[in-house]
Amino acid sequence: MSINVTVWGENVHEQREEKVRRRYPDGMHGAVADGLREHLGERVRVRTATLREPEHGLDAATLAATDVLTWWGHAAHEEVGDEVVARVCERVLAGMGLLVLHSGHYSKVFRALMGTTCTVNWRDSADRELVWTVEPAHPIAAGVPQPLVIPEQETYGEPFGIPAPDELVFVSSFSGGEVFRSGCCYRRGKGRVFYFSPGDQNYPVFHQDGVRRVLANAVLWAAPDGRPGEPLRNTRVPAGDW
Amino acid sequence: MSINVTVWGENVHEQREEKVRRRYPDGMHGAVADGLREHLGERVRVRTATLREPEHGLDAATLAATDVLTWWGHAAHEEVGDEVVARVCERVLAGMGLLVLHSGHYSKVFRALMGTTCTVNWRDSADRELVWTVEPAHPIAAGVPQPLVIPEQETYGEPFGIPAPDELVFVSSFSGGEVFRSGCCYRRGKGRVFYFSPGDQNYPVFHQDGVRRVLANAVLWAAPDGRPGEPLRNTRVPAGDW
Amino acid sequence: MSINVTVWGENVHEQREEKVRRRYPDGMHGAVADGLREHLGERVRVRTATLREPEHGLDAATLAATDVLTWWGHAAHEEVGDEVVARVCERVLAGMGLLVLHSGHYSKVFRALMGTTCTVNWRDSADRELVWTVEPAHPIAAGVPQPLVIPEQETYGEPFGIPAPDELVFVSSFSGGEVFRSGCCYRRGKGRVFYFSPGDQNYPVFHQDGVRRVLANAVLWAAPDGRPGEPLRNTRVPAGDW
Amino acid sequence: MSINVTVWGENVHEQREEKVRRRYPDGMHGAVADGLREHLGERVRVRTATLREPEHGLDAATLAATDVLTWWGHAAHEEVGDEVVARVCERVLAGMGLLVLHSGHYSKVFRALMGTTCTVNWRDSADRELVWTVEPAHPIAAGVPQPLVIPEQETYGEPFGIPAPDELVFVSSFSGGEVFRSGCCYRRGKGRVFYFSPGDQNYPVFHQDGVRRVLANAVLWAAPDGRPGEPLRNTRVPAGDW
Repeated sequence: MSINVTVWGENVHEQREEKVRRRYPDGMHGAVADGLREHLGERVRVRTATLREPEHGLDAATLAATDVLTWWGHAAHEEVGDEVVARVCERVLAGMGLLVLHSGHYSKVFRALMGTTCTVNWRDSADRELVWTVEPAHPIAAGVPQPLVIPEQETYGEPFGIPAPDELVFVSSFSGGEVFRSGCCYRRGKGRVFYFSPGDQNYPVFHQDGVRRVLANAVLWAAPDGRPGEPLRNTRVPAGDW
Repeated sequence: MSINVTVWGENVHEQREEKVRRRYPDGMHGAVADGLREHLGERVRVRTATLREPEHGLDAATLAATDVLTWWGHAAHEEVGDEVVARVCERVLAGMGLLVLHSGHYSKVFRALMGTTCTVNWRDSADRELVWTVEPAHPIAAGVPQPLVIPEQETYGEPFGIPAPDELVFVSSFSGGEVFRSGCCYRRGKGRVFYFSPGDQNYPVFHQDGVRRVLANAVLWAAPDGRPGEPLRNTRVPAGDW
Repeated sequence: MSINVTVWGENVHEQREEKVRRRYPDGMHGAVADGLREHLGERVRVRTATLREPEHGLDAATLAATDVLTWWGHAAHEEVGDEVVARVCERVLAGMGLLVLHSGHYSKVFRALMGTTCTVNWRDSADRELVWTVEPAHPIAAGVPQPLVIPEQETYGEPFGIPAPDELVFVSSFSGGEVFRSGCCYRRGKGRVFYFSPGDQNYPVFHQDGVRRVLANAVLWAAPDGRPGEPLRNTRVPAGDW
Repeated sequence: MSINVTVWGENVHEQREEKVRRRYPDGMHGAVADGLREHLGERVRVRTATLREPEHGLDAATLAATDVLTWWGHAAHEEVGDEVVARVCERVLAGMGLLVLHSGHYSKVFRALMGTTCTVNWRDSADRELVWTVEPAHPIAAGVPQPLVIPEQETYGEPFGIPAPDELVFVSSFSGGEVFRSGCCYRRGKGRVFYFSPGDQNYPVFHQDGVRRVLANAVLWAAPDGRPGEPLRNTRVPAGDW
């Protein structure tokens, strides 16, 4: 049974900026989707969805048929409708996996699921990022170079305004000296959430093999054991007769 | 320097139901406030605030002068204004301590800070609750009987729809056989959050000494080291000259 | 590729006590092994090993060929040789999965991997145990009744002298009112460790279907992604040329 | 009531190497002790103890009178007697705070309390270390520069063979690009353990103000609420009469 993945991309930088379009002719979402297909083959069925589609391409039927959703947004976080945000969060709490990528840290979806500011220190100065594995046996780190070298990338620095991760997999350094918790696992309700910081419109990060390996591993990790079900609800229970 | 505590109570059951009013003539908020004064004396300055006051008694100036806020709500969660909820959460992320009590598990404030359903299984059948300490050296457990026996209480049962606590201090059993993670610590932004499940309008739990001891300990634990500051923000940083 | 499981049993009560022998004619280790075969079929190759065998049946070659080890001991913890204990711990840190069962909480192996007392409160009074799932989407809880009712069992009560689990899956109540963190996950080095408290020589717990389901799920969870490798070592590293 | 601190130093490099002696004329333990007195004044009573003293200066009476122990060792981990190691661990589990410094990561005491290899990647090449706070509201980070710049220091790199910390306070980068979880909190039994990686015989790190500030904060954090008591024990309990 293959895993149904929906790759969501804001697709705004790609439309507005010629340089980004040349770097990502199929959009960043296209590159992410390609990476998953490349590494996972028939284990996944991948579709994409973007902001300007009706309901941002995330209508109830699409989400109901999604096992793992990936999320990249940056320029238009505020344009994402609150109803869609609530729907996505509800699906995560019901068991859908979620991968939040790079500037998605400040998306409404991630902030709603974390409950914190999800803010970062940042600088766009083409620093070299080194992604170090701190949990070598974690399935998301399988086959990932130690370190994973990203030649040029936007710098994200601590403090990162997140709850302490349930599992911290990667920590990055930047050539300017900053550090960042770049790979963070959370269990929220019945769903699993993975945040991964590499990946920016200004650098070809989503074409890089090690990055794609991480995303593919994370899809396998985040996929529910069966199909997503329903979130927990307040439930009146009778006294048991054990 | 004493700790400024604001005890927030919904104060709806107390107004509507004669039995509750007799049990808590000063409201449940009054009983909580008394318990804190009794155990902490001059270490705290306690005020109360309730739903029907303007801005629910939680205007910006009050919150700015609050080190630790306690929250009890049940019948009117939806009447709490979203603006006040956002203000309270921002203050927590800036360092204000928060104690969430009993049915406050389903308050907008707690759900926003946790990002999950915060739902419970429940039954109101006057079960006896035993509150067991699982972390004997935790400051919130200091001086608390093992177990803390609550003769009659509403039953809360697992699964409790929360993120895994950063520190689990208490686990309860009920005479019907249910268990519940009844004392849960979280760090969220610069603030500390403690959820404690005992305490209901239908039982005199907030008059009980062991319960008051827990609340007093939790105020000391949740109080910020100085005055609350500002939440983290996305911040552009220059390259360092180390 | 099937998972190689070694089921280790102390096999002392079964030899000494007629009642235990009738309850577990193939030993408790035999019952555990049967349960795994029953639920996992060709996904596992199960062997057993016991205390009185040379090197307790856990020579280096056997451990090297083991993906997941299960451990039950009680009457003879101190008879387990320190060399074997060190060898088992090293294999766990190298990636071998470990299931520690019931009174195995006080085994040398578990105490060495946890670093704490691993002590419990206890009473043998045929209490009814209810095992509640607190993480409903955890793979170890898949298909497990909520609650799992164990009609008669030794009582274990908090405080349980363990480090806070990396993932808490089950919490039990007993008819006497005690609670216990009965299903606890740990990552230690490259290995995964699961402690599960039900299962005693005086009760037929290891013949019970729900218990066997938990053990089967836990084997799948604890199995390394490939074969176990080597533990981490202090390693001098050259300056990178990124 | 002041906190009784025992600063333990191996004191081997200082005796053998003239350069180290000049850098630390009172030993590294002397520098650590000075830093604590400087920052904490009358809040602490500080004594020192070293390897070559009888029982390494850690006889039962001394430990019984110690609220927080700090530990630095490197060249002679294997010379520390197992009986003393067991005594120290028992006191930690009974509530004594423990600060493990730098190369103490590979001490018998730390490895016994963690249960893992506690290994690091390392290189002694006078890299600049930047210690970043990832939990800005943690009491151990109070008043610590962001980042804390250590001009020259031995490099420690991930993977660090530890259990996931209960609270991760600091993460360091090195000019060579490595990262390291440099400030890690653990609760073990009734005691609190803090590992802090800066501090080496070849660099004057323990004379640096920000480092001393961290150590002083950590003593306050690790000190038990009262005097240390007894570790947990297996205890037979009667059925309660609640």
